Amino acid sequence: MGKAMISKEPVRGMRDVLPEEMRLRNEVLDTMRRVYGSYGFEQIETPCMERIENLSNNQGGDNEKLVFKVMKRGDKLARAFESGQLGALADSGMRYDLTLPLSRYYASNIQKLPQPFKAMQIGPVWRADRPQLGRYRQFCQADIDILGDDSLNAEIELISATSSLLKKIGIPCRVRVSDRRLLASVAAYCGFAESEFSEVFVVMDKLDKIGLEGVCVELLTTGYAGECVDAYRELMEGFREAPSGLSYCSNLPLDDVGKAAIKRLSSIIEGVAHVTFDDVVPKLDLSLVRGMGYYTGTIFEVESSEFNSSIAGGGRYDKMIGSFTGKDVPACGFSIGFERIIQILLDKEHLRTQENKIAVLYDRKVTTEEVINLQRECQQLREEGAIVLLVKKANNVNHQKERLFANGYEKIIVATCGFLCEQEEGARV
Amino acid sequence: MGKAMISKEPVRGMRDVLPEEMRLRNEVLDTMRRVYGSYGFEQIETPCMERIENLSNNQGGDNEKLVFKVMKRGDKLARAFESGQLGALADSGMRYDLTLPLSRYYASNIQKLPQPFKAMQIGPVWRADRPQLGRYRQFCQADIDILGDDSLNAEIELISATSSLLKKIGIPCRVRVSDRRLLASVAAYCGFAESEFSEVFVVMDKLDKIGLEGVCVELLTTGYAGECVDAYRELMEGFREAPSGLSYCSNLPLDDVGKAAIKRLSSIIEGVAHVTFDDVVPKLDLSLVRGMGYYTGTIFEVESSEFNSSIAGGGRYDKMIGSFTGKDVPACGFSIGFERIIQILLDKEHLRTQENKIAVLYDRKVTTEEVINLQRECQQLREEGAIVLLVKKANNVNHQKERLFANGYEKIIVATCGFLCEQEEGARV
Repeated sequence: MGKAMISKEPVRGMRDVLPEEMRLRNEVLDTMRRVYGSYGFEQIETPCMERIENLSNNQGGDNEKLVFKVMKRGDKLARAFESGQLGALADSGMRYDLTLPLSRYYASNIQKLPQPFKAMQIGPVWRADRPQLGRYRQFCQADIDILGDDSLNAEIELISATSSLLKKIGIPCRVRVSDRRLLASVAAYCGFAESEFSEVFVVMDKLDKIGLEGVCVELLTTGYAGECVDAYRELMEGFREAPSGLSYCSNLPLDDVGKAAIKRLSSIIEGVAHVTFDDVVPKLDLSLVRGMGYYTGTIFEVESSEFNSSIAGGGRYDKMIGSFTGKDVPACGFSIGFERIIQILLDKEHLRTQENKIAVLYDRKVTTEEVINLQRECQQLREEGAIVLLVKKANNVNHQKERLFANGYEKIIVATCGFLCEQEEGARV
Repeated sequence: MGKAMISKEPVRGMRDVLPEEMRLRNEVLDTMRRVYGSYGFEQIETPCMERIENLSNNQGGDNEKLVFKVMKRGDKLARAFESGQLGALADSGMRYDLTLPLSRYYASNIQKLPQPFKAMQIGPVWRADRPQLGRYRQFCQADIDILGDDSLNAEIELISATSSLLKKIGIPCRVRVSDRRLLASVAAYCGFAESEFSEVFVVMDKLDKIGLEGVCVELLTTGYAGECVDAYRELMEGFREAPSGLSYCSNLPLDDVGKAAIKRLSSIIEGVAHVTFDDVVPKLDLSLVRGMGYYTGTIFEVESSEFNSSIAGGGRYDKMIGSFTGKDVPACGFSIGFERIIQILLDKEHLRTQENKIAVLYDRKVTTEEVINLQRECQQLREEGAIVLLVKKANNVNHQKERLFANGYEKIIVATCGFLCEQEEGARV
């Protein structure tokens, strides 16, 4: 056997999860499965690897540059290496999101899936990003998607379900919505040309960070006409001051596509409010753009109202599956920033003890037979629903108890004989 | 955007999980977390990748040949490629089991972990094995390990916990135990030299498949002395016919190590019987060897009594962590063949409907406003604990209903207006 070659550290940019965080993660995941499950979302799983062709067909944008590539094996690897072509060495790679695998899954299993298909996916994804504080190269994503439903019920359900989930795990939130078609219509109304839209959107997306004046300056220095930029400034100022963003937009002389988008957004907003008993009222926000290029209609983003950070987002992408299968399928999805939610909850909560979590420390003078008897009594408590740890008392018992309390044990018993009942009075800490 | 480059198939040797199987997997995983959790096992997670040095330091035996290697990126990859050394291209790889990552994790986080540490791990592992029926290149493992406890309470707890779990998920089982030190003592008693033990064990391990006579023939043709083989045959025949394997072994003139091993095994067997209220009585089996070279003491294997196949196994490996950190740590673990268990349960059970799982199909004449109202009523049922799917009625409604029943829906309602309550009488299927 080899000796001490091991590195104790995880792979660069990745991390180990300690028991305390793991308990929190499992709690959130259980709630997620329960809440999303109650809407009829069905959980599925795909392999963590995808074929290299599928990871490099331009669906993933910048993420494709961040793929961890997996090498061929055996003869195939040897031949690829001899060919001298670096690009021929890998035959697969780690998935960078859950949307591309879902599209492949849907195309591959469509015969066996209900229509429309409501999918829930929870699992790790990988991106070889530059490691930085709070961002890791392996992280968990949690997605819900509705495939095959073009009605606005899809949007209403996705938003209601996600709001309901976030409320249940203790993160009240705000929802902002918009529509890519409305954005296009607004841009046209300001006088931008259709060929300029995508570049203009990228600048507009910075409004949160650099403010309206910053966006206008950047549009001007990029070379757009002053009158377009002025129209945009005026429109956004009017939008900001209007008592209702929806009425404001309804009164703009937009084209038919824009008008239809407003009508749809209005129905979605009313729908979510109605369904959630006015608990959640999404807000139209003309400054919402969302980075991904594949959105074709409604877009939405959820922020924690306490922490002011975006924790979930999504939208309608009716053309994506079609670009794989040749046949368009209406699709709408919501992706939750699972790691950010865990971080928020970790910051919020202190170590909690768990009810009915008991540690029994047996003294060194307790015999093997007595330990077995203690184990039997512990077994009965477990059958009744308790969590019972039976361990030898450490030399440094104070440190041991401290660690156990930190791990959520609410009761610690030091056993000096083979019967639990005889310890309980005096020895409880 | 690129066009139709996608392959619908998963990576060769890997598979997609459909919703029906996923529900079963989640049920088993929940039970596992609950049962193992009740013993104080704490779930942890490590990254799916490990550094390539750690995956090729001879801890993993044959599995090291099956590692999926992950390529370096950027300049490092370019330099490695230019160096002309195939071995320099990868800096990490996919884990082939959960024991090596656990050892690294323990070494890295020991200050933050309770002592002894009872770990539970559930997650995917990868092996680039030749794909074959029922065996996949990505599969789920579920391990429990106790690190830092040399007492036989560790063995008793691992066996009790696993038996209790298997019983709860409906797979009654048999447990066989032995001890590597007993095997060595028996081999010495038969006259084999210590240097021959590991080779002899490999042959003895085949007893299940080729029978006692087959093992003896193979030992002879490999070149071992006839009198050693005769002594082994006689001993095994005696063991097989003895009313109690334990008493039979106790009466053999073994060396002190062998005698101590029998005494320990006897305590473990009695202990498990006592703790489980005689529900599980492990059986000493001298033909049990278990493939892995790293076991140092007790070994055990669990078979389904219905399906006659091995579904879990493990043992004590007191020297493994020391070979990484330089300091031995007593360790004992149990690994469950999760995929085999799922296969057994899938074979056993038919499609089950889930209680309170309701599908509402709305007719095409139902207006958007009415759908939103239905959604609101569904939302109330969800809050009360039901699973409620709201979807548009398909053209082929019979096929749609069939799929829904297959997916566990116990009630299907066809809605023709915006109020659920008005449908229920007539429209239930």
